[in-house]
Amino acid sequence: MAVYTEVSDEALRAFLADYALGELLAFRGIAEGVENSNYALKTTAGDYILTLYEKRVEPAELPWFLNLMQHLVAHGLSAPLPVAGRDGAALRELAGRPAAICTFLPGVWPRRVRPEHCGPLGDALAGLHLAGQDFPDVRPNGLGAASWAPLLDACRADGESVQPGLVAELDAALAAILAAWPEPGALPVGQIHADLFPDNVFFLEEDGKPRLSGIIDFYFACTELLAYDVAVCLNAWCFEADRSFNVTKARAILRAYSARRPMSAAELAALPVLCRGAAMRFLLTRLYDWVNTPAGAMVTRKDPLEYLHKLRFFAHATGPEAIGG
Amino acid sequence: MAVYTEVSDEALRAFLADYALGELLAFRGIAEGVENSNYALKTTAGDYILTLYEKRVEPAELPWFLNLMQHLVAHGLSAPLPVAGRDGAALRELAGRPAAICTFLPGVWPRRVRPEHCGPLGDALAGLHLAGQDFPDVRPNGLGAASWAPLLDACRADGESVQPGLVAELDAALAAILAAWPEPGALPVGQIHADLFPDNVFFLEEDGKPRLSGIIDFYFACTELLAYDVAVCLNAWCFEADRSFNVTKARAILRAYSARRPMSAAELAALPVLCRGAAMRFLLTRLYDWVNTPAGAMVTRKDPLEYLHKLRFFAHATGPEAIGG
Repeated sequence: MAVYTEVSDEALRAFLADYALGELLAFRGIAEGVENSNYALKTTAGDYILTLYEKRVEPAELPWFLNLMQHLVAHGLSAPLPVAGRDGAALRELAGRPAAICTFLPGVWPRRVRPEHCGPLGDALAGLHLAGQDFPDVRPNGLGAASWAPLLDACRADGESVQPGLVAELDAALAAILAAWPEPGALPVGQIHADLFPDNVFFLEEDGKPRLSGIIDFYFACTELLAYDVAVCLNAWCFEADRSFNVTKARAILRAYSARRPMSAAELAALPVLCRGAAMRFLLTRLYDWVNTPAGAMVTRKDPLEYLHKLRFFAHATGPEAIGG
Repeated sequence: MAVYTEVSDEALRAFLADYALGELLAFRGIAEGVENSNYALKTTAGDYILTLYEKRVEPAELPWFLNLMQHLVAHGLSAPLPVAGRDGAALRELAGRPAAICTFLPGVWPRRVRPEHCGPLGDALAGLHLAGQDFPDVRPNGLGAASWAPLLDACRADGESVQPGLVAELDAALAAILAAWPEPGALPVGQIHADLFPDNVFFLEEDGKPRLSGIIDFYFACTELLAYDVAVCLNAWCFEADRSFNVTKARAILRAYSARRPMSAAELAALPVLCRGAAMRFLLTRLYDWVNTPAGAMVTRKDPLEYLHKLRFFAHATGPEAIGG
């Protein structure tokens, strides 16, 4: 369920009156995304997405996200552009929630990732990192390495019910990850997406080949090791349904990324531990949601154990070569 | 949750190749409707809705629904038009489900019904009935008066847990409704929508007034007493949040309906019992879903008791005048 907040006719019309977007033509809830309420909005000016920011997003951080999106689009990334109201402000309020309208991005996210998606992904990710280079404001990664021990602690009591031995295995894995984590200053830092899963990347087919048409959902973006974003993609795009790691996809991501923004030797060397860290991050947030979401809640809980297998895979990777580097 | 079936990239592209709709531009699940999976589909030819028919819809009945929609649109109703593939067939298959593409209908359904919506509603309902006049094929109403006793029987064991005394009250109410139900042939019969709730009726604002832009979701349509469709609307559009019956709204519906298709004296006289019947129908299907839906299911159960209050209201209506007639 992706629509949490209903919007009354009057509230919507009053809200739209503060924009120069013409007349309302259609307004329908979108069944994708799990963090916010998203509506497809059509006006005489075109297609847009209206987002109401729900409780997981800190209102004070919204200007950072919207400013980053505007900056990235201004610097050539294809991403939703926040639309300013008549008074110049893009961040507004609707139905008691912070709200923003962004431009509609054509494209379809890949339900099944093919190797041909991965080159365009790596290229666009490098483009995102380059476009963010001179965005000056810092947003620390609230789900970065420092957050993992407290997250694991919060799951300690119930984690065993998910799988016996899970907590002990995660304790050991986390200690190893933190011991090997890059020192501050060792690797380049910048604005990263931090959640670049296939459902956040749109493609259009062109001459039978997928062309990346844009990147959406910047609400986990933060200032973090750039190579960590690559590690998230290796987690999110390169495992097959049978849990095997598709090194062809990984190579395509890394090759295209490095062609646009060459990774340093230090970044490449750190990639395996960054992949373990990214697996740990998604495992822990999924585990936290799993043990804290009532079974009857209208939310699809994602299986945390999928990431236990990814974590184990990366823990056994002997070097960057094993993961496509 | 309104998307039950995921569609792979390959399956979607193969499916669209059988239409002359140009290139795929976007494909997003819609979070509305509870019976089928609906996707907003954008191609270079325009905007469409792709529907996958889920288990509640009998595949053998789909040609009737799609033919009716084509007939109604051809006779002037603003409704989604099923789009035929290159071979002329509108009903196709996708992801193992029967599937159809319909034209996109602009408009927004009213989250809060105002009296100004009700005149256009009555007018369009009469227009629907007139447009359906020469549609020759009959579809009996599977949720008509004959179905209510078996439905109530199916809820007998668990109904008391919803509210003590509920089953006995419904037994008595149903007996009274069936005793007063119009004899076959007593009232005009035709093609009815049978589920014309506000979320199935779209409006656009024009000079500050709502203009009805179209009617959607014909998958409960059937061949039934025309005045029963009016009774469904009186149930669905005229009660306020505080459970009071807004007779101004009812009058607006009835007046506009009769201006286009005059109701006979017999239809008007039968309206109170038809309203009780319509209340019973929605009460029973909601009650059935309530007692048969696991608490953890990803479906919003609708409160059956809302319709108990409507049933009681109509049972106390002394004549058509009490309900706006």
